[in-house]
Amino acid sequence: MPELPVPPAALRDFTAGLLGTLDVPRDDAALVADSLVQADLWGHGSHGVLRLPWYVARLRSGAMTARTDPAVLSDTGPLLLLDGRDGIGQVLADTARRLAVERARTHGVGVVGVRNSNHFGTAMYWTRRAARDGCVAILTTNASPAMAPWGGREKVLGTNPWSIAAPAADGRVVAVDIANTAVARGKIHLAKNRGEAIPETWAMAPDGSPTTDPAEGVLGVLLPMAGHKGYAITFLMDVLSGALTGSSVGASVHGPYEPERRSGCGHLFLAIDPAAFGDPGGYTERVEQLIAEVKDVPLAPGVDEVFYPGEVEDRAQAAALAAGGLHLAEQTLADLLQLSAETGVPFEPGTAPR
Amino acid sequence: MPELPVPPAALRDFTAGLLGTLDVPRDDAALVADSLVQADLWGHGSHGVLRLPWYVARLRSGAMTARTDPAVLSDTGPLLLLDGRDGIGQVLADTARRLAVERARTHGVGVVGVRNSNHFGTAMYWTRRAARDGCVAILTTNASPAMAPWGGREKVLGTNPWSIAAPAADGRVVAVDIANTAVARGKIHLAKNRGEAIPETWAMAPDGSPTTDPAEGVLGVLLPMAGHKGYAITFLMDVLSGALTGSSVGASVHGPYEPERRSGCGHLFLAIDPAAFGDPGGYTERVEQLIAEVKDVPLAPGVDEVFYPGEVEDRAQAAALAAGGLHLAEQTLADLLQLSAETGVPFEPGTAPR
Repeated sequence: MPELPVPPAALRDFTAGLLGTLDVPRDDAALVADSLVQADLWGHGSHGVLRLPWYVARLRSGAMTARTDPAVLSDTGPLLLLDGRDGIGQVLADTARRLAVERARTHGVGVVGVRNSNHFGTAMYWTRRAARDGCVAILTTNASPAMAPWGGREKVLGTNPWSIAAPAADGRVVAVDIANTAVARGKIHLAKNRGEAIPETWAMAPDGSPTTDPAEGVLGVLLPMAGHKGYAITFLMDVLSGALTGSSVGASVHGPYEPERRSGCGHLFLAIDPAAFGDPGGYTERVEQLIAEVKDVPLAPGVDEVFYPGEVEDRAQAAALAAGGLHLAEQTLADLLQLSAETGVPFEPGTAPR
Repeated sequence: MPELPVPPAALRDFTAGLLGTLDVPRDDAALVADSLVQADLWGHGSHGVLRLPWYVARLRSGAMTARTDPAVLSDTGPLLLLDGRDGIGQVLADTARRLAVERARTHGVGVVGVRNSNHFGTAMYWTRRAARDGCVAILTTNASPAMAPWGGREKVLGTNPWSIAAPAADGRVVAVDIANTAVARGKIHLAKNRGEAIPETWAMAPDGSPTTDPAEGVLGVLLPMAGHKGYAITFLMDVLSGALTGSSVGASVHGPYEPERRSGCGHLFLAIDPAAFGDPGGYTERVEQLIAEVKDVPLAPGVDEVFYPGEVEDRAQAAALAAGGLHLAEQTLADLLQLSAETGVPFEPGTAPR
C-alpha cells in the first residue's frame, strides 16, 4: 500500500481516460470522474472510485451504454420526463439538474423525472450543483433491493438515496444525503475491501441472523434507518423515483455491481428558485440564521464543534487537499491498477516525489 | 374513565361546535374537527383531540386568528406563495393542498409555500387528501424548537414533520408521515397524559441526562431519529418550510402549546399529477407492484403480516369504527369536558346506551 496520498487530479485523469477507452465522450467521462473523486474527497469512499470497476464492467457488457442520449417523453414547461435509455447515471442526473434549474428559473419550479437510468454516484453531488446554480433542490432515486419491508426477511426495496441541498451565503451550500438503510451498502463494500468488521446494527446475514462480517452483510439484508420509518420512507422514494417516472420499481431494479443487467432505476429531480417567492435576499438571511443557530448551540460533553449539514464534507475535502490527496482502500487501489494494466491507461498512485 | 368508546361523530360535533363559539367559520371548524378526530382514528392520539385545548387557548389569546384569510404573495402558475396571516394551520394546509392539486392538473406540478401559518395537525391528513385527488404529494413544515443540533445540548430545531402520499388502485393510498425526532413530541405529551414512562431513547432531560419521565422529556430535548441523519433532515426541512417561504426558522418558531405567541411556522406543499408523465395506468400498476412485493415477502420470526406504508393507519381506523369509537386518554377527556363546561357546548363521552 502506498505511503503517499493519491492526488485528486491523478485520479480524475485516470478515471476519465479509462472511460474514454470505453467510448464514453470526453465531457461525460470528465463528469463521471469528477463525481467519483468528489465523493472520495467528501469522505464518502463508498461512493467514490471504489465503484469505477463496476461501471467499467457494465460498459463492457453493454448493460450501460457509453453514449448517453436521453429522449424527452413529456414536457409541460415546469415538468419533464426523460427516458435515459440505459445511459450513464451521472450524465442523466446532470441533464436532469440542468433542465430542472432552467425550468425553475422560468417557472419558479422545475421537476425532471428520469426513467431507465443507471447508478449516478452520490446524490449530493447533483443537488449541490443545483444549489450552486442558486436553487433549492431535491433528488430521489431508487436502487436495487437491499432492504426487507419492516417485518420481512428478504430484500425487496433499495436503499433509495435522496438528497436536499440549498444555497446559503458566500457560495456555501447546506446539504443532506440519506440512504434509508442504517448505512449505505457501499459502506459495507468498503469495510469488506478494508477487511474491517461491521456493527451488528448495519445488516442481517442471508439467514436473517445478526452479523459483523461485511461479506455476509453484502449478501444479506440491510436494516432500515430509524426502524419502520426508514422502511416507509424508502417505499415512498421508490414511488417518486420509479413508479412516477415509469421506470422499474422494487425487486425489478438492478444494481451497479451486476455487470450484465440493465439497471432500470429512475430518479426525480426537483428545483425551486428562491427568487420565485419574491425575497431571495431574505431567503439567504434565513438560511444563515439557521447555520448560526446550530453553530452557536451549547455543546454536549466531549463535542468540540457542531456542523451544519454538508459542512463535514467540506471539511473532509479541505483536509484531503491539505494532505495532498486521498488514501484509498487497498482493494480499491488494486482494482484501479488492474484496470490500468488491462487498458494501458497510466495510473501511478504510489510514486513518491523525490 | 368511561367504559365505552367515544363515537367519532360525537367528537367531531363537539370539536366543531366548540370552535364555532370562538368565531371559526362553520366549514373551517368542521375541517379542523375532522383532521383531529381522523388522527385519533389512525391511532395517532398525539395529534388528535388532545391538541384541541391548545388551539382553543391560541384562538382566545388571538395568537391564532379565527377567520383564516390568506394573501397570495407570488403566483407563477405552477408555484404560489401564500401569507397565512396567522390563520388556522389546518385551513391553510387545505388551501395549499387544493391549490397545489389544481396547479398540478394544469402544469404537471404545483408548489405552494405558506408563511405565517400555525400547527396543521398531522401532515398525512393533507397529503392523503391530495392523493385522493389523484396526485403524488409532499408536505413539509417547520415547528418550534424540540431537537438539539447533533453534538449540541439545547433545542434549536423542530421535529419538522413531513409526509409523502401517493394514490394506488381502488382508492387506496400509500403514505408516510415522519417526525425527525425519535418520536413526535406529542407522543411524550400523550405518555404524560396517560401517566406512562417513556423509553430512554426518546428524549434527554433539560440537563442533558437520559430520562424515562415524560414530564422531564417534555421540558428537555428530543433525540433525532437515526442519529445525525435526523438532525440533517430536520435542518433541511426548515430550509424548505421556513427559509424558502419567508416564515420564521429555527428557534424563532413557536409551538401550539404556547397560548400567546404567534407561531411563525411555514409549510411547503408539492403535488405532481402522474398523468403529466403520460402513463397514469402504468403508474398505478407500479405502485400496486410495490404493495404486492412488500405484502408477499417471507416474514421474520414472530411477525404475522407486513404492512405497506399507511396500511397501519387504515387498519387502526377500521378497528376503532368496528369497536364503536375511540378510547381517549384520561387527561384528554378531562380537558374536553372542562371545555364543554366552560362553553356550554355539549359533550357526553361516557353515556352508555341503555
